[in-house]
Amino acid sequence: MMQQKNIGYYRLIMLNSLGRVVPDTLRGYTSATAYQSKNRILIPEKAVVTKPLFLDSISAIFDEYHISDGMTLSFHHHLRNGDGVLNAVCQEIKTRGIKHLTIAPSSIFPNNAIIVDLIIAGNITNIRTNYINGPAARPIDDGKLQGLLLMDTHGGRARAIESGDLPIDIAILACPTVDRNGNGSGTEGLSACGTLGYAQSDLRYAKKVILVTDTIVDKVKQIDLDGKYVDAIVQIDSIGDPEGIVSGTTKITKDPVGLKIARDAADFLYQAGVIKPGFSMQTGAGGTSLAVAAAVRKMMITKQIHGSFASGGTNGYYTDLLKEGWVDNLYDVQCFDLEAVRSYRDNSHHIAISASKYGNPYEPNPVVNNLSFVALGATEIDLDFNVNVTTDSLGRLIGGSGGHADTAHGADITIITTTLAKARLPIIKEHVTTITTPGEDVDVLVTERGIAINPRRVDLLEKMKNSNLTIMTISELMAISHQISGIPAAIKEPGKVTGLIVYRDGTILDQLYQRF
Amino acid sequence: MMQQKNIGYYRLIMLNSLGRVVPDTLRGYTSATAYQSKNRILIPEKAVVTKPLFLDSISAIFDEYHISDGMTLSFHHHLRNGDGVLNAVCQEIKTRGIKHLTIAPSSIFPNNAIIVDLIIAGNITNIRTNYINGPAARPIDDGKLQGLLLMDTHGGRARAIESGDLPIDIAILACPTVDRNGNGSGTEGLSACGTLGYAQSDLRYAKKVILVTDTIVDKVKQIDLDGKYVDAIVQIDSIGDPEGIVSGTTKITKDPVGLKIARDAADFLYQAGVIKPGFSMQTGAGGTSLAVAAAVRKMMITKQIHGSFASGGTNGYYTDLLKEGWVDNLYDVQCFDLEAVRSYRDNSHHIAISASKYGNPYEPNPVVNNLSFVALGATEIDLDFNVNVTTDSLGRLIGGSGGHADTAHGADITIITTTLAKARLPIIKEHVTTITTPGEDVDVLVTERGIAINPRRVDLLEKMKNSNLTIMTISELMAISHQISGIPAAIKEPGKVTGLIVYRDGTILDQLYQRF
Repeated sequence: MMQQKNIGYYRLIMLNSLGRVVPDTLRGYTSATAYQSKNRILIPEKAVVTKPLFLDSISAIFDEYHISDGMTLSFHHHLRNGDGVLNAVCQEIKTRGIKHLTIAPSSIFPNNAIIVDLIIAGNITNIRTNYINGPAARPIDDGKLQGLLLMDTHGGRARAIESGDLPIDIAILACPTVDRNGNGSGTEGLSACGTLGYAQSDLRYAKKVILVTDTIVDKVKQIDLDGKYVDAIVQIDSIGDPEGIVSGTTKITKDPVGLKIARDAADFLYQAGVIKPGFSMQTGAGGTSLAVAAAVRKMMITKQIHGSFASGGTNGYYTDLLKEGWVDNLYDVQCFDLEAVRSYRDNSHHIAISASKYGNPYEPNPVVNNLSFVALGATEIDLDFNVNVTTDSLGRLIGGSGGHADTAHGADITIITTTLAKARLPIIKEHVTTITTPGEDVDVLVTERGIAINPRRVDLLEKMKNSNLTIMTISELMAISHQISGIPAAIKEPGKVTGLIVYRDGTILDQLYQRF
Repeated sequence: MMQQKNIGYYRLIMLNSLGRVVPDTLRGYTSATAYQSKNRILIPEKAVVTKPLFLDSISAIFDEYHISDGMTLSFHHHLRNGDGVLNAVCQEIKTRGIKHLTIAPSSIFPNNAIIVDLIIAGNITNIRTNYINGPAARPIDDGKLQGLLLMDTHGGRARAIESGDLPIDIAILACPTVDRNGNGSGTEGLSACGTLGYAQSDLRYAKKVILVTDTIVDKVKQIDLDGKYVDAIVQIDSIGDPEGIVSGTTKITKDPVGLKIARDAADFLYQAGVIKPGFSMQTGAGGTSLAVAAAVRKMMITKQIHGSFASGGTNGYYTDLLKEGWVDNLYDVQCFDLEAVRSYRDNSHHIAISASKYGNPYEPNPVVNNLSFVALGATEIDLDFNVNVTTDSLGRLIGGSGGHADTAHGADITIITTTLAKARLPIIKEHVTTITTPGEDVDVLVTERGIAINPRRVDLLEKMKNSNLTIMTISELMAISHQISGIPAAIKEPGKVTGLIVYRDGTILDQLYQRF
């Protein structure tokens, strides 16, 4: 029904299907075409708008997105030891016999034991994660992973994904509640786990993003995963075991030795001028690290010192600090317990942040860079202050950096708190088995027998020279620990390389080896 | 400090700065480089992470993003006749003497009079918008815009932006409240305006996105504009006049003629079987259209019929429907009054949608496609049922489609309600001056003297053949109106083409002309 005529004013005149004169091309609006009567809306190839698909099973993801040999699948660990999604996907991989997959979960927990079989059968040949604990670590120690285990930091994983260093084919993200627009919430539903900070890079940068949920609502109250990035939503009966989801943290130590260490750490921080109005803090989730938080809180109350923020994975100890007004804000990548979930849901000063905002070294100003101090644990620390939280002293995988190396690099002062020996093994080594965090970023070691300051921190040595605390060198502390628990025997020669410790900027800190 | 040695197992062995063996390249992880001692985090070119800049003036946007001749700037109209942001940007364009700009506000209101000077001086040479009313329209009617005015629909604008048909250099988006992460809220702050549906495509697809606000908080309670897409935040004293922001809607007509038309429209819809359990609706914001909403509500109460949803720009009439449980959900692109703002803030069934989700024809299932009926206005309607809401009967710009053509195409039944004459001018024409909505999408015309059904709708003609309502042809209605108000004189020959009416799929419906 399109007609053309030449009536002078235009080079070429067209009538559209309503009989109206329209231009063919006109002054810069070159894509003009004439209206073409009803049922005319043709969606061109370049149309970019998509909305979430609704799928009804894990299996349907595999069909819809053609999950096949060699792909990279990513996951987050916010459901911690209660996660059912990574396991369900692994079960489907096993059933279908897909091979040579790379999986990139932000952490791997003891309940992910199904991975063992998939490593051994060659379904999973490469793993990239920030933390691995439990059965899945064993075949890697045994040299059965055909490819490599790459161990990132929390901030480094975000960097790797966002910079293209870790390309993800399909992110399969557990989400406690999802709405019809594909928006996901971490605070609603049966498996509420709080903030979803570790999933943010996957959400934005994976080629395809699938949310797996057990609860679909019309509209979530708080958006933790933005539906704009979501390709599909899968509803299954249950995404996890609520018991396991919030069980990932420990309680403050009751051991008097640990409590003394924590008090000394707080005293050290006060004497070094760190605990002053407006200071900010993070502690690890271990019992002694939490005791440091408690000791610092007591000091804040006694001395009426208000801080600015606390960050990290959060728990009830931190939400109390916020509720009582000792800090203005919590910056939270991950909630460790139900108090934290509730606080994030209800308190506008409890602020969700992505792993990127938390610790990505490419961020102009990640939260870790604003920390006055961080108190962290160690399974080993050496004379250069290098810290290992990745392997035990036999070199077998028991953890990983998480945010250890990120916060250690960012904070003004990084304190390691530990007893001199654990399970009768000395913690201070000449060289750690595996470097998780470079000694260049570790400033102070607080033990039950004394405190060692990294000789690089001449400022701290100077400040503490008249302290009533017992300051000595790390060699002196090692000598004391050898008197207590003896000099450990050298461990067996390792086998082949099984993995790499990737520093937060993508460079290689160390290697992991097959252990016999 | 990097060292290399050849010890057999590796082709080339390197030690990193901590003295650890690291690979040069290893099994697929080809980008491995050795850790390089402190201060080693070099941000490569490819790093993609950005965080919002904080700027302190509108002028700073121009400096930071080099706003210069020929660029395209976009805006939304959620602050309606109270908007101060488009005006402030225009003032800066004027001060700097920047030329040949394209502006793409989703609508232009009477308070945007500053545009007049900028058109005349050639600062602004192209305009792309969905609605224009007030002084800014006059120089366009007068042929002073050097380029063209392109008039989209609300859904069509989203399509144009998202498909690349309307590339935006810089989106400058007014936002009532913004937080430190760049997240914006429409329900908090001095200039709270509710949902921000028209800004969503700009937010996602503009090359640079600037939020302009008068209120910065630590964390917004509800995210309407996602900080992930925000390049910069500008804080100014005031983004607008609250009085003007929510004044954009009219009240239900009190004219008995209008009320009769509304009742007849509701009766028609009921008799045609449209008003039945689960039906969905939208009405325009005009007084008679709102009266249709009120008449339909009365019918729902009398007959105890519950609907599923109402959509569109929302107001107190709609929030009452939701509150009283007559519909399950409101899908809302834009809030017209304070009741709507409050309802959106507090009621989880009052759901914000983007212009794309609302009416983008490239969306698989936009909300408009699910409408049982829409009741709309007209400034002219012709014998082919084509509707004009863009120009008056002299061809001068007084409005635009907004969602008119989107909903007319999507809804099962499109009803136009109007008196036969306005200001003594007949509304029914042989041919409308400007086609805003093709007659192919318009089903019923309800006037005070009778109801005309589009002959294409044989189903409706059949259903209504025994109706007690006065059904006649549109020609008969035109004849009646000519008896009342006479046959209008032909208007003057138009001058050059000043603009194009762009149908929602991007094709050209009609042209706009210089008027004398």
